[in-house]
Amino acid sequence: MHVPRLLFLLFSILASIFSIRISAEGTVEQWDCFELSFSAPATANPFVGVAFSATFEKDGKRFQPDGFYDGNDVFKIRFMPNEPGIWTYRTQSNYAPLNGKSGSFTCTPAREGNHGPVQVRKQYHFGYADGTAFRPFGTTSYEWWYQPDEMRDQTLATLATSPFNKLRFLVIPNYRKEYYKGGSLELHDLPFEGDSRETFDFSRFNPKFFQRLEENVLKLQDLGIEADLILFRPYDNAKWGFDQMSMETNERYLRYLVARLAAYRNVWWCMANEHSYIDHLTDNDWDQLFRVVQASDPYAHLRSVQNADDIYDFNKPWVTHVAFHNYMAIRSPGVPSIIRSIYRKPVIHDEINYEGDVDSRWGQLSSEEMTYRFWVGTIGGTYVTHGETKRGEIGDGWISRGGALTRQSPARIAFLREILEQSGLTEWEPIDPAFQTNIAGKPGKYYLIYLGKDQIESWPFVLPRDGLEPGMRFQADVIDTWNMTITPTDQTFEVERGGRYHFSDKTRQTIALPTRPYMALRIQRIPE
Amino acid sequence: MHVPRLLFLLFSILASIFSIRISAEGTVEQWDCFELSFSAPATANPFVGVAFSATFEKDGKRFQPDGFYDGNDVFKIRFMPNEPGIWTYRTQSNYAPLNGKSGSFTCTPAREGNHGPVQVRKQYHFGYADGTAFRPFGTTSYEWWYQPDEMRDQTLATLATSPFNKLRFLVIPNYRKEYYKGGSLELHDLPFEGDSRETFDFSRFNPKFFQRLEENVLKLQDLGIEADLILFRPYDNAKWGFDQMSMETNERYLRYLVARLAAYRNVWWCMANEHSYIDHLTDNDWDQLFRVVQASDPYAHLRSVQNADDIYDFNKPWVTHVAFHNYMAIRSPGVPSIIRSIYRKPVIHDEINYEGDVDSRWGQLSSEEMTYRFWVGTIGGTYVTHGETKRGEIGDGWISRGGALTRQSPARIAFLREILEQSGLTEWEPIDPAFQTNIAGKPGKYYLIYLGKDQIESWPFVLPRDGLEPGMRFQADVIDTWNMTITPTDQTFEVERGGRYHFSDKTRQTIALPTRPYMALRIQRIPE
Repeated sequence: MHVPRLLFLLFSILASIFSIRISAEGTVEQWDCFELSFSAPATANPFVGVAFSATFEKDGKRFQPDGFYDGNDVFKIRFMPNEPGIWTYRTQSNYAPLNGKSGSFTCTPAREGNHGPVQVRKQYHFGYADGTAFRPFGTTSYEWWYQPDEMRDQTLATLATSPFNKLRFLVIPNYRKEYYKGGSLELHDLPFEGDSRETFDFSRFNPKFFQRLEENVLKLQDLGIEADLILFRPYDNAKWGFDQMSMETNERYLRYLVARLAAYRNVWWCMANEHSYIDHLTDNDWDQLFRVVQASDPYAHLRSVQNADDIYDFNKPWVTHVAFHNYMAIRSPGVPSIIRSIYRKPVIHDEINYEGDVDSRWGQLSSEEMTYRFWVGTIGGTYVTHGETKRGEIGDGWISRGGALTRQSPARIAFLREILEQSGLTEWEPIDPAFQTNIAGKPGKYYLIYLGKDQIESWPFVLPRDGLEPGMRFQADVIDTWNMTITPTDQTFEVERGGRYHFSDKTRQTIALPTRPYMALRIQRIPE
Repeated sequence: MHVPRLLFLLFSILASIFSIRISAEGTVEQWDCFELSFSAPATANPFVGVAFSATFEKDGKRFQPDGFYDGNDVFKIRFMPNEPGIWTYRTQSNYAPLNGKSGSFTCTPAREGNHGPVQVRKQYHFGYADGTAFRPFGTTSYEWWYQPDEMRDQTLATLATSPFNKLRFLVIPNYRKEYYKGGSLELHDLPFEGDSRETFDFSRFNPKFFQRLEENVLKLQDLGIEADLILFRPYDNAKWGFDQMSMETNERYLRYLVARLAAYRNVWWCMANEHSYIDHLTDNDWDQLFRVVQASDPYAHLRSVQNADDIYDFNKPWVTHVAFHNYMAIRSPGVPSIIRSIYRKPVIHDEINYEGDVDSRWGQLSSEEMTYRFWVGTIGGTYVTHGETKRGEIGDGWISRGGALTRQSPARIAFLREILEQSGLTEWEPIDPAFQTNIAGKPGKYYLIYLGKDQIESWPFVLPRDGLEPGMRFQADVIDTWNMTITPTDQTFEVERGGRYHFSDKTRQTIALPTRPYMALRIQRIPE
């Protein structure tokens, strides 16, 4: 019983001699990652035995991120300062070479394009820490970062010119045998030491795996793309056992991941994809995993979980937003706004079926339908995530491995995004949602009316009463959301009361429409 | 300081002399109400100062309902035995005349028609305590019991021949000035002593008010109708202040109500109508009010709350089922099943707009639309509540005062109820709800396919794959849900695999339809 303790003491003394602070004093930009690095012999199992953290302080503000072992006798600690100025730090550890190190560094103001981490804003929406609005336009590529460099780079190039500003992906890749046997992928680094179910040591992480993950999170950050990290997944096919780990292992994995990644400002935590397909974890287990992330992350990055058939209770206090997975909830106009009312939190429809042509019916949407669902979600005051499949490709194409986007919705999604950005409104709210399914904007100022699958010849100028006064004047544009055209009408509309709940144009004007689906109207007040 | 204590002692001694047990030994039917009654001088304020309960026991099963003061120096305690046999009891009180009374009585088996209280069953459904299925077909008449006897009796007669087996109504009536000034109603008994905001004594209940309520709950019980009691409501118009009482008063009111009514088997507790319109109560307050009811009610009667714009978190553990109030959630096929998946509890769409012709748009549904919404909710595995308005009537007619039902949906709702009862299925589940919006029943056995507003000429015989095997044979009926006809086809269908997700008729038969809205198909397996 005394031998390990003696060994530990011996190593501690040796280690304190070898200890060198590699990086430290200097400057770092606000919301960038400040990293401290210490060389010290990794005694016993440094992933388990070493408690290591640091306290960072400025003007009474205090953060205490955990450090982590990064392999090769190097321990690191990362910190994301949220204010310019001089920050001091002091480390704490049960391992002497890591304990009591102190110093300071200067945080410089964020440069253009660095808006800080994304947070919830105005109950149903998101914004960056610097006050800039953030409207999620997500896409999904579960294992893009795990692909060969060439393909990974192609994915990044695709994202750079896409409308997407958030990427959902797995931390731990799917096990699909076609990847690894006769497919294009080699079984290389995995999160734990070992290379098979029989040899994995769940008490020892493989730093190389996480280093590559970080490299790619930072590449997304450079593109201004949020990294929506999916922390657990059921897709193991009994091969590696990563969906059947003990809660102790799950919790250690989360703490390690958070210690490594929380200082990257573009990180979001998604506890799982299709969480309830991980059969052995109960609601209570998920609660506990959420709480571990919440307690470990000093910056309170966004937290959610993507449900499977059994819907997790997104009302729980540690859930910051809803990552909803229900196709019906995005197919019917009016429904997205119900979902957000139920949860009283921002809603991202994080899986709405994928555009493409695979055999599975979850991956067969037409480009028109994908575009339609983006509009339905947006008009409902919620957010929507894209994905694309391709028949015959390993992993069904983009949604798994990334590469190129080949279908027609992304251009239409870009068109929608541009309309929203041009509006000058930072948050979209459904208007009169208890009785209307297709209007959003700002009452009295700006209305976006989505006609969806209705193919009508003309639209009578009638608006819900809120925010309107007799005599207000409006202009209107006809938008073809599929052909991506915006056609101003040459009409001016002046409203008067038209019954108990509405205002109408005084002269009963209508707006002519081309009797096609996927049309919308943009109605804006003419300033006095 | 000593005078009240002395007085109390004196009264206690006097009271114990006068104390007479009025009813006690005897028999009572299972799930009926056994009542103990004690005469004792009501010292000081018996609604506040007297703690009084009794412990009822049989074979180690123990219940401890609270007693209550019923006016005129009478204290009562009520108990609903849930098993036949001999029950014993012993009272506890801080008031000597009520303390330590003991005795026993015999509980006889329930007679035909007495199925006990309704409980949640199989997660999304309801059943009586005796195992009989209970499928709620509710209607709404907020103040029916508060009307003159003649009108009250008319309401009961209407209910007796209606399809409705649950009635939602307010404990405390709405204050509408047209009821009381120039209207047909007299301001008579209210729940508290006094008759105006200035004179109400919120520490003293008015037993006559509650006696009348109980009389009417029992009249519903005689008709086999569940009494869905709404305990708070916002409709006070600053007149009585019953929506602005302190939490202390709210809690005392709940305990008094539960002590009086919990022994009636047909009682459900609905914490409020449009709860969030009671501005000063927070989520925490509602949590607390739920917990008071939960703690006071020994029988765990069903508990919910009807939301207003701000949706209460129905996931909370004390909520037994969802009393949902959102018109959009019942307008779109497929949506009801999402709502129940979110809450993982039974869902009753408890306000879906009312059928009728009042100026307010919440009361303008056509009979067709009311019927349609009943079908949409039913096919989604949820339950739906009816209501009817009439222009020009005080309180908008049936939904407020009861009386007669004059519109066309109740006959169609009866027709729907009959179809469900004929099915032999006790619980309805949506079939393939992630991709289909209009099928419910039991896979491989029984399918009810509701075509709603689609007006189609024919329906190809294609069913979702679950529960099907090649060679199974089916018969089909065409149902006109509006004209209330069931027309058997003379076809027999034999299924084979038809793609990845479906089975089709081998010979590609279709079912001819009359190109009208509101049609349905009933498809039943032909036994081997």
